Amino acid sequence: MANLTQTETRVDTVAGMRSIYSFGGGKADGGRDDKALLGGKGANCAEMARIGLPVPAGFTITTAVCNDYLARFAQAPEQALADPASAFPDGLEQAIAESLAVLEEQEGRKFGDAKKPLLVSVRSGAQASMPGMMDTVLNLGLNPDTVQGLAEQGNPRFAYDSWRRFIQMFSDVVLGLPHGDFEEILEEIKDEQNVLEDSELDAEALQTLCDRYLELVAKTGTPFPQDPIAQLHAAIGAVFRSWSNTRAKTYRRLNNIPDNWGTAVTVQAMVFGNLGNDCATGVAFTRDPSTGENLPFGEYLINAQGEDVVAGIRTPRSLTIAGRKAIGSNEPALEEAMPEAFAELMRIRTLLEQHYKDMQDLEFTIQSGRLYMLQTRSGKRSVSAAIRIAAEMAGEGLISQDEALMRVEPESVRQILHPTLAPDSGETVELTRGLPASPGAASGIVVFSAAEAERLAPERAVILCRSETSPEDIQGMYVARGILTTRGGMTSHAAVVARGMGRPCVVGAGSLHIDEEQGVMTGGGQTIRAGDEITVDGTGGRILLGEAKMTEPNLGEEFTLLMQWADSRRRMKVRANAETPADCKTAIRFGAEGIGLCRTEHMFFQKERMLAMREVIVAQDETGRRAALAKLQPVQREDFAEIFRIMEGRPVTVRLLDPPLHEFLPRGAEEQATLAEALGISASELRGRVSRLTESNPMLGHRGCRLAMTYPEVYEMQLRALFEAAHLVAGEGVAVSVEVMIPLVAFDQELARLRQLSEAVAQEIAKQNSATADKVQYIVGTMIELPRAALCADTLAKQADFFSFGTNDLTQTALGLSRDDTGPFLPYYESSGVIPRDPFASLDLEGVGQLVKLGVERGRASRPDLKLGICGEHGGDPASVEFFDSVGLDYVSCSPFRLPIARLAAAQAQIRKDRKDRKDTDS
Amino acid sequence: MANLTQTETRVDTVAGMRSIYSFGGGKADGGRDDKALLGGKGANCAEMARIGLPVPAGFTITTAVCNDYLARFAQAPEQALADPASAFPDGLEQAIAESLAVLEEQEGRKFGDAKKPLLVSVRSGAQASMPGMMDTVLNLGLNPDTVQGLAEQGNPRFAYDSWRRFIQMFSDVVLGLPHGDFEEILEEIKDEQNVLEDSELDAEALQTLCDRYLELVAKTGTPFPQDPIAQLHAAIGAVFRSWSNTRAKTYRRLNNIPDNWGTAVTVQAMVFGNLGNDCATGVAFTRDPSTGENLPFGEYLINAQGEDVVAGIRTPRSLTIAGRKAIGSNEPALEEAMPEAFAELMRIRTLLEQHYKDMQDLEFTIQSGRLYMLQTRSGKRSVSAAIRIAAEMAGEGLISQDEALMRVEPESVRQILHPTLAPDSGETVELTRGLPASPGAASGIVVFSAAEAERLAPERAVILCRSETSPEDIQGMYVARGILTTRGGMTSHAAVVARGMGRPCVVGAGSLHIDEEQGVMTGGGQTIRAGDEITVDGTGGRILLGEAKMTEPNLGEEFTLLMQWADSRRRMKVRANAETPADCKTAIRFGAEGIGLCRTEHMFFQKERMLAMREVIVAQDETGRRAALAKLQPVQREDFAEIFRIMEGRPVTVRLLDPPLHEFLPRGAEEQATLAEALGISASELRGRVSRLTESNPMLGHRGCRLAMTYPEVYEMQLRALFEAAHLVAGEGVAVSVEVMIPLVAFDQELARLRQLSEAVAQEIAKQNSATADKVQYIVGTMIELPRAALCADTLAKQADFFSFGTNDLTQTALGLSRDDTGPFLPYYESSGVIPRDPFASLDLEGVGQLVKLGVERGRASRPDLKLGICGEHGGDPASVEFFDSVGLDYVSCSPFRLPIARLAAAQAQIRKDRKDRKDTDS
Repeated sequence: MANLTQTETRVDTVAGMRSIYSFGGGKADGGRDDKALLGGKGANCAEMARIGLPVPAGFTITTAVCNDYLARFAQAPEQALADPASAFPDGLEQAIAESLAVLEEQEGRKFGDAKKPLLVSVRSGAQASMPGMMDTVLNLGLNPDTVQGLAEQGNPRFAYDSWRRFIQMFSDVVLGLPHGDFEEILEEIKDEQNVLEDSELDAEALQTLCDRYLELVAKTGTPFPQDPIAQLHAAIGAVFRSWSNTRAKTYRRLNNIPDNWGTAVTVQAMVFGNLGNDCATGVAFTRDPSTGENLPFGEYLINAQGEDVVAGIRTPRSLTIAGRKAIGSNEPALEEAMPEAFAELMRIRTLLEQHYKDMQDLEFTIQSGRLYMLQTRSGKRSVSAAIRIAAEMAGEGLISQDEALMRVEPESVRQILHPTLAPDSGETVELTRGLPASPGAASGIVVFSAAEAERLAPERAVILCRSETSPEDIQGMYVARGILTTRGGMTSHAAVVARGMGRPCVVGAGSLHIDEEQGVMTGGGQTIRAGDEITVDGTGGRILLGEAKMTEPNLGEEFTLLMQWADSRRRMKVRANAETPADCKTAIRFGAEGIGLCRTEHMFFQKERMLAMREVIVAQDETGRRAALAKLQPVQREDFAEIFRIMEGRPVTVRLLDPPLHEFLPRGAEEQATLAEALGISASELRGRVSRLTESNPMLGHRGCRLAMTYPEVYEMQLRALFEAAHLVAGEGVAVSVEVMIPLVAFDQELARLRQLSEAVAQEIAKQNSATADKVQYIVGTMIELPRAALCADTLAKQADFFSFGTNDLTQTALGLSRDDTGPFLPYYESSGVIPRDPFASLDLEGVGQLVKLGVERGRASRPDLKLGICGEHGGDPASVEFFDSVGLDYVSCSPFRLPIARLAAAQAQIRKDRKDRKDTDS
Repeated sequence: MANLTQTETRVDTVAGMRSIYSFGGGKADGGRDDKALLGGKGANCAEMARIGLPVPAGFTITTAVCNDYLARFAQAPEQALADPASAFPDGLEQAIAESLAVLEEQEGRKFGDAKKPLLVSVRSGAQASMPGMMDTVLNLGLNPDTVQGLAEQGNPRFAYDSWRRFIQMFSDVVLGLPHGDFEEILEEIKDEQNVLEDSELDAEALQTLCDRYLELVAKTGTPFPQDPIAQLHAAIGAVFRSWSNTRAKTYRRLNNIPDNWGTAVTVQAMVFGNLGNDCATGVAFTRDPSTGENLPFGEYLINAQGEDVVAGIRTPRSLTIAGRKAIGSNEPALEEAMPEAFAELMRIRTLLEQHYKDMQDLEFTIQSGRLYMLQTRSGKRSVSAAIRIAAEMAGEGLISQDEALMRVEPESVRQILHPTLAPDSGETVELTRGLPASPGAASGIVVFSAAEAERLAPERAVILCRSETSPEDIQGMYVARGILTTRGGMTSHAAVVARGMGRPCVVGAGSLHIDEEQGVMTGGGQTIRAGDEITVDGTGGRILLGEAKMTEPNLGEEFTLLMQWADSRRRMKVRANAETPADCKTAIRFGAEGIGLCRTEHMFFQKERMLAMREVIVAQDETGRRAALAKLQPVQREDFAEIFRIMEGRPVTVRLLDPPLHEFLPRGAEEQATLAEALGISASELRGRVSRLTESNPMLGHRGCRLAMTYPEVYEMQLRALFEAAHLVAGEGVAVSVEVMIPLVAFDQELARLRQLSEAVAQEIAKQNSATADKVQYIVGTMIELPRAALCADTLAKQADFFSFGTNDLTQTALGLSRDDTGPFLPYYESSGVIPRDPFASLDLEGVGQLVKLGVERGRASRPDLKLGICGEHGGDPASVEFFDSVGLDYVSCSPFRLPIARLAAAQAQIRKDRKDRKDTDS
């Protein structure tokens, strides 16, 4: 908190800590680095004030006070609701009063003064951005006296409009009265006045509206509070409490935000975008948050308050002429309507981006032609935008290449690797168009509520269709594949949230009408019912009927550039888990430097091969097994040959047969009949054999190398196929690098004997292929996927050229947790905080991580040149990748689509290490 | 090898190591400490020679030569068979010739000399005693010339008897000709001579017999070798090779004897017990090997060679008058028949026991009234005898109490803890009596061959009934519950092996006749068929018809004494795994100092409780579960109360519900119908619920504390029952010490939350029972049974008052090995040497042991007063107990019947540690 020593106005302390920080008039107590204490809103207002931008003055109550308040509130909630300040920490009330006095002086207005009243906004603001999740009260300080004074200043309509907005918002947020009751009265008045729009109501009508609002509140038994100080205390308490509402909690869980951060409260002098037609309010991004293009982007509303833009009640206009043209609108852009204010905004845009060195999301209000900045923060952006902005800012010299790499969340890259609408999806009927709010495409069945989305999502892909979304819909948006709204703009709730989540989203498809109760959506001459299939094209802004054809994503040159930087930065190699020619090709396209896991059993899942494999398993003796294996050998040889041809000399790690046999056993009567016939035995005899092969815990049963120890002929066939393929391809002039991997090793004798078998077969095949004998290189290694293997890695390393950590099975065994059986408790463990994350998605560093570390240390101690890798699902998880880098693995192997994630995560791991090393050297 | 520097006759070296050690004439090159090199036979003959006992002179070829020979033999077996010395290491042939020359000089006879030939025995002898498993050749050096010379010395009958014995034995052992062919010729001659016994054949008849034997051998194409040196070389090779025969390998595997020890070969001058009626041969134990009583015990045969006694061909006589009377025999004892030789034997008995400080097993021959010692070794004995001898020798001051404790193999104690015949089993019909060769009693069905025993033993208890047993029967004896032979004495093969294995055994039940082919045994007016049930009383020497009533063993005062010594010597406490009142009582009788594992789910396996438990499991909601739990609570409370009453204040570790739910699920249609009715739902609905509860890998599924995390009401009921019981019993004035144990903990939050639940219930119940509130002490701890728990023991210890290592599940998870599914491969792993022992029987020290050690170290580091125990099956395995002592556990807990094993093993662990510490201090 470097700025604190420079401050002049030390306001007070609560429990030994300062509780309030003021800003305004080119000075501030805090700054951008104080987000933990002041929240994003408070810290950035302070920062903007410090660098001389036009920010309405105000003060921020810290997050520490929030936590203190929430604890006190929980002790006696009823008393705190009746007397808001009773739950304030000692001294806070006094501190608020002092800060308010400073604010009154700066603004030249007095809070509660009937002549020249000061109005304030009371806003939430946490360390991390949680858009729309917490509450805000605007226009606070109004009562029948002050509204009168405000009206007398020349604009009675504005005064009563503010007054009715305040009553409604305060009643909703602070008093907890139903929003709809106020809307009903508003509709009544509009009917009485025979007008359609709120803006058509004159001052008198608004005054009547306010009186009826007050009557409505009085019916609860407690009249609307008239004392502005009482209003302020109550609003501060309510905003603090909004940290703990359900949607905020859900958002935090989804975004890994700790519950104990708390929110700050910023009390700020009101400026008004609703004072007339020379007033406006809007939001702006310093670059396009959807594409990342270096152009200003944003929306505004004339004669409105900020909430109107975000809530999507009126469709806002584009900031720029280019923006207006892009969406085919004739409404004047701010650039046209208020060129001076626009120019000032553009100056500030450049200044803030240079200052923060990142794309900014701005809130502004124009009061009587003068621009005020209300907020700046790092702007949310689509993944493509994040990549383009990072790459371009590095190109502009604004940030370093390392910084660019750190700007992209590796996990998020997954979103752009997934399909978009195919160019030739022309046969599909286009229903309508809307705004392309979040890129990518998705097909699914239509649902009209978040609850329905949650209910159906586990089974079906769903598209959530709403008039507009609200924070209550967040869980439903999360589970949906795509989102469609009929109202709202590019910065509406739906658009912002969908981009954050990476869900394809089209907003403002105004030609559609949704009747949620009837479960129908009409428009474009069509009627869509719940359950009908549609496609959302969030890149093109189109809605199509039915399921459309998708295409692989065009990743763009910035992505390629960033990946090149990542590749040159990372120490760890990346490989893919793949066994089909298609997957191998995808792997190479996504940067695989080899195959880290070729699961040979996957090659048997095709129908005919499956039959032969089953014959192997249920054969009664070695002769029977060998006969069935003989059918598989040529097939498997051809599979291997094709992989070698595609991989062109990159190392291919072939894991010999691994899974529990039950995975191959025929369950259905028809399948059993086919197999019985193939084996020439009766169905009942087959049932007997199948039943004998059934295991209590197949995960821990007769599988992996244990199969080969008892039936060596199985691996013998695989090895023969493997080495024959290698020589075949080597004979075609293609380089071949084979890595034979023995799975599920627990004891060194298992590895020793199967290594011997591998070498014997390799030698035999080499002898038969003398022309290519010196062209086929191979090494033999083992999976480390049992705790014992990790613990005894020193012994195993004597028999192994490489280790590959099988972190899936290692997690299952170290935690005693069957991946197939976690349903009844693991989700609860995660949601209730027993574990931080699903250990199958992100490596359990505390437990399983220790085994990996031990395995690495002991393996290398016994064999310094041991090659080390990992081939579990965790190879594509950024946090896990960082850990693997830190323990010194040579490579990670993951599914082809996660390769870019792994490459970026590996680069980030290296950058973090270098930064830490530099820091350690410096200190 | 302290003696080697004192030797005078340095014979030679092979490959830099000395290959032959001589003994005789009061001198010897080696001694008792050289067993590894000279085998038991060679080392002890040398020792006896050194201390001046009458030992025929001879020399021993080392075990190192054996290994060298076997490797060379394997290279070119055919050549080695044709030219025996071709597989000898360089220099061995020469060394044998030199040693033979020394022997000829000492004996005053010449090998192969036609006038005064030297005859030798060629005997096997390994580091560990392997009685009857390897081969021996006697009377070697005879040929048509030398037999003539021997005959001319005055006893032609003896000469030809020796010659026919030699031809037969050499043909069998060295030439590999079928034994039966020679027996047939013998029978022919006996028919021709019209005699019944071999001993009735005169010299002439024996000469004819020898001629026919030689003809039989010649028919193979290779005549019987006449050159004594060629005979000697061939016999040495054959004895070496007998190390690798099947029965020797089996014996080694059963007795954990390494394959690479090899056998030595001792070539020794023959003395003859078959030279006339002033000659005899016999075996003696310095104390009774069956009871341990301090009385000489043994058998002899007049005018016979040693093999006749061991083979059980003639029923031998008792050495002592007391011994003769004990078995009701009128045949004169050696004490009566040859009092002078007997007195000399008694002198040597005392001398050897003092010298070796252990009970000895002696072989002797009396040639023309003069006693020769052929062997002394530590005598095999029954477990009761081992205990009595150890206790009494310590009482006599011959050995220390520590040494007495070390003399009893803990695992063997198991044998005497099992039942003997009940005194009131009078209703059973006694079939016959025989010699009580190995104590204890067993009932089972009759089988007449070892193969049949092996076939049926997995399903049924079998009693192996044979005329006599041979080394080929060893596996059948191992799997049988009891053994009966109709021939042979107390030192016959059957008797020696049965005592070693701890199988009840009656030998020499001569009134019975077995017709193996017909599958019947007749005698005592009864016909017993294969499959009929009988009872063998190895303590009383009786055979009963049918299954007899058994009684708990009378362990004897020496056992009690030894256990007291063990208790005062051990550091670790012992507890029992028990949950029924009967088991708790047994536990206390066997010395339990507490209950280390009370498996609460076992209390639910009774029919009515099972139904309630099933209702809990398939209940659809918490209400349903609570209703069913309410039925179980009073029952479980009474169970706990009864255990507390029996344990009288000893700590009781109660493990809350642990097993996979599937263990309780009803499988049968009838059971499902009952449950469906109890639940008031349809059978098909129940099937649906059961199917949803089915898990892929129940071992790794929703069990242990995971159940309680999702359904806390289950543990809540158990805790309530537990603490209510504790207060109830405390109110009765009985001390109570409760240890609540949470199973299957992987994450510290599981333990933290369930500890909290335990404390809440304990406090609540204490509040309701203020009178006993301060009398019920409790602590809360966890099982360490998952690798993660061991690795994160530091964190877990912060929430735990104690750890109990659940080594069963820890083995399953660390090795990825489901105990229920090891059938298809683990037995193979053990028999083929992939693993040294079944890791579920004896802890895998290399792997699982590391986790236990880590758990202990990290747990104690984080909480120095942490109580540490183990409650897996390994708590009763001596090798595992020693390990648990070494890592500093406070106690082991095992099944009640294994408690004495654990107590003794714990004492031995302490003694070994003290000895090692002393040795470390000394050096």
